[in-house]
Amino acid sequence: MIKVEDIGEKGLLKILHSFCPENMIGDDAAILPAPAQKSLVVTTDTLIDGVHFSDRTTSPEDVGWRSAAANLSDLAAMGAFPMGITIALGLTGNTPVAWVEKFYKGISECLQPYNTPIVGGDIVRSPVSTISITAFGQVDPAHTILRSNCQPQNVIVTTGVHGASRAGLELLLHPELGEFLTELERSSLILAHQRPQPRLEILKILWDCLSKNNSSDAENSKNSILVGGMDSSDGLADAIVQICQASQIGVRIERHQIPVPPALTKFVSSEQALKWALYGGEDFELVLCLPAIYGQKLVKQIGVGAAIVGTTTDDTDILLIDSQGIYPKEHLTLRQGFQHF
Amino acid sequence: MIKVEDIGEKGLLKILHSFCPENMIGDDAAILPAPAQKSLVVTTDTLIDGVHFSDRTTSPEDVGWRSAAANLSDLAAMGAFPMGITIALGLTGNTPVAWVEKFYKGISECLQPYNTPIVGGDIVRSPVSTISITAFGQVDPAHTILRSNCQPQNVIVTTGVHGASRAGLELLLHPELGEFLTELERSSLILAHQRPQPRLEILKILWDCLSKNNSSDAENSKNSILVGGMDSSDGLADAIVQICQASQIGVRIERHQIPVPPALTKFVSSEQALKWALYGGEDFELVLCLPAIYGQKLVKQIGVGAAIVGTTTDDTDILLIDSQGIYPKEHLTLRQGFQHF
Repeated sequence: MIKVEDIGEKGLLKILHSFCPENMIGDDAAILPAPAQKSLVVTTDTLIDGVHFSDRTTSPEDVGWRSAAANLSDLAAMGAFPMGITIALGLTGNTPVAWVEKFYKGISECLQPYNTPIVGGDIVRSPVSTISITAFGQVDPAHTILRSNCQPQNVIVTTGVHGASRAGLELLLHPELGEFLTELERSSLILAHQRPQPRLEILKILWDCLSKNNSSDAENSKNSILVGGMDSSDGLADAIVQICQASQIGVRIERHQIPVPPALTKFVSSEQALKWALYGGEDFELVLCLPAIYGQKLVKQIGVGAAIVGTTTDDTDILLIDSQGIYPKEHLTLRQGFQHF
Repeated sequence: MIKVEDIGEKGLLKILHSFCPENMIGDDAAILPAPAQKSLVVTTDTLIDGVHFSDRTTSPEDVGWRSAAANLSDLAAMGAFPMGITIALGLTGNTPVAWVEKFYKGISECLQPYNTPIVGGDIVRSPVSTISITAFGQVDPAHTILRSNCQPQNVIVTTGVHGASRAGLELLLHPELGEFLTELERSSLILAHQRPQPRLEILKILWDCLSKNNSSDAENSKNSILVGGMDSSDGLADAIVQICQASQIGVRIERHQIPVPPALTKFVSSEQALKWALYGGEDFELVLCLPAIYGQKLVKQIGVGAAIVGTTTDDTDILLIDSQGIYPKEHLTLRQGFQHF
């Protein structure tokens, strides 16, 4: 197997250039047209071998896909469309060249539907493999989604089901758990874990909903309706807590409204399924806060999986409630599962 | 000594937020105004502990400064002014918090003269410390400097002396070598190594020179004079070879015209000094190719250190010549010193 130390930096760059637009190659930096009258949005993410990914559990294509998806999801969380990404890799000398190619292939597959180019990068030798991706995008300033934009007496919308990624991971680790699942159910949960989808297509639907409701005065209303939100990459509960805290408001989340893939309760209890939905993470849905009338339109337009899960309040209590009266109220907390260091 | 594992990710972020503009904090990505009618320029660089920096030889402030300077220099090499940087850090749990603070301080000191904000970042745990910086800037499309812009029968300008950084490193490793140097000479060489200056201020001088020469028809001429070039971070020879190859032209470099700090020949031979100037690297000057009349103006405007070092040709020979006839012609080569992997 050919290693990166066998072909050197130049050999590797030659291969990787095939993944980049030709005019992006050969200078100290990449050049892109700047979007007129837009804001620039920038986000960066780092993954370390053995900490955030591992050959034992994840194929190089999937590592690439998930790295790209996480960054695109961060852009979607701000309301921004992607313009390009840069990839900085630290690689051990004995990394197979094929691993790097497959990693880039996974990234390209994730970027392809959004016509987002890889515009630059850096490759250096490292005792442990590391990946840093920086994505940049553009947003109409009037369409920027901020965590701090949430208002009381609005609704919280999730753009899709939660808990699927965590369930998919469980099925990969313990295949025997899924004995009552159909092949389609099993593979779709596993796919949710391996190939999470950044929800960029939601943005168009969202702003269509807001402007269609106000066709007489679309431009004005567009500017006056604040949409708050973020993505649920660290879990639905984490997203809800973060946006409420940033906006200094409270929320009542109705536990029976949280959309969970039906297949989950075929192999775990509904309590476990809810826990995965709230705290599992990596579902990359958007969690948005907006006036009820627009929230209802949005959920209808998105279709299966999207739901209104709660209503924001003037106080600062972040509560999971049960209007059926079976479960007591409980406070939602930031994700327990993962703290760096 | 407090380690990052003692205060956790949140504790560390709290400290590092003091280095960022307040409105950049708290969302999934940073938002910046996009420049009107400019191109966006993006560059990224990765440094690995033990490969590119080491506590044994470099203070955390200097690691920070040099990381930022390298990225700003890549922007300057394209003719672009910086808009912001993101910093992605992988840190071992036992990294002292003070190290991270000093590293950020060094970055901030380098960025400060250019009012360039740190707009985002990511911090994760890693078995080896890694730094990835992505810088983005803006350039007037008519002022973009490309490696492939060089024309034959133009001159090659260096914006300053070469070999100083390599000499400074030598003095740090072997202080006894500099016994005939004044304290000022010694400290300025060491500073050239520890705190290299990105040459962003050259850009204004450059475009002033081009437009003043054509005051009657400034706008037209601005568009028609192509400036080729890059920075000399990998050495003067490397820069000359790269731009000639990208532009498919040749060059005659006059060995006696290469500007070297006078102090160098106080402790090494002039042959050694020339070798450091050509292949030492890390001097972060700009190496530009433009018509002779503008090259002469530019060198005069920049002042001490700047020089015309050669003339480009129609052939593709990249030659170091000696018009005094003492040394034979020789071919310049890409920097021998450093190949990744």
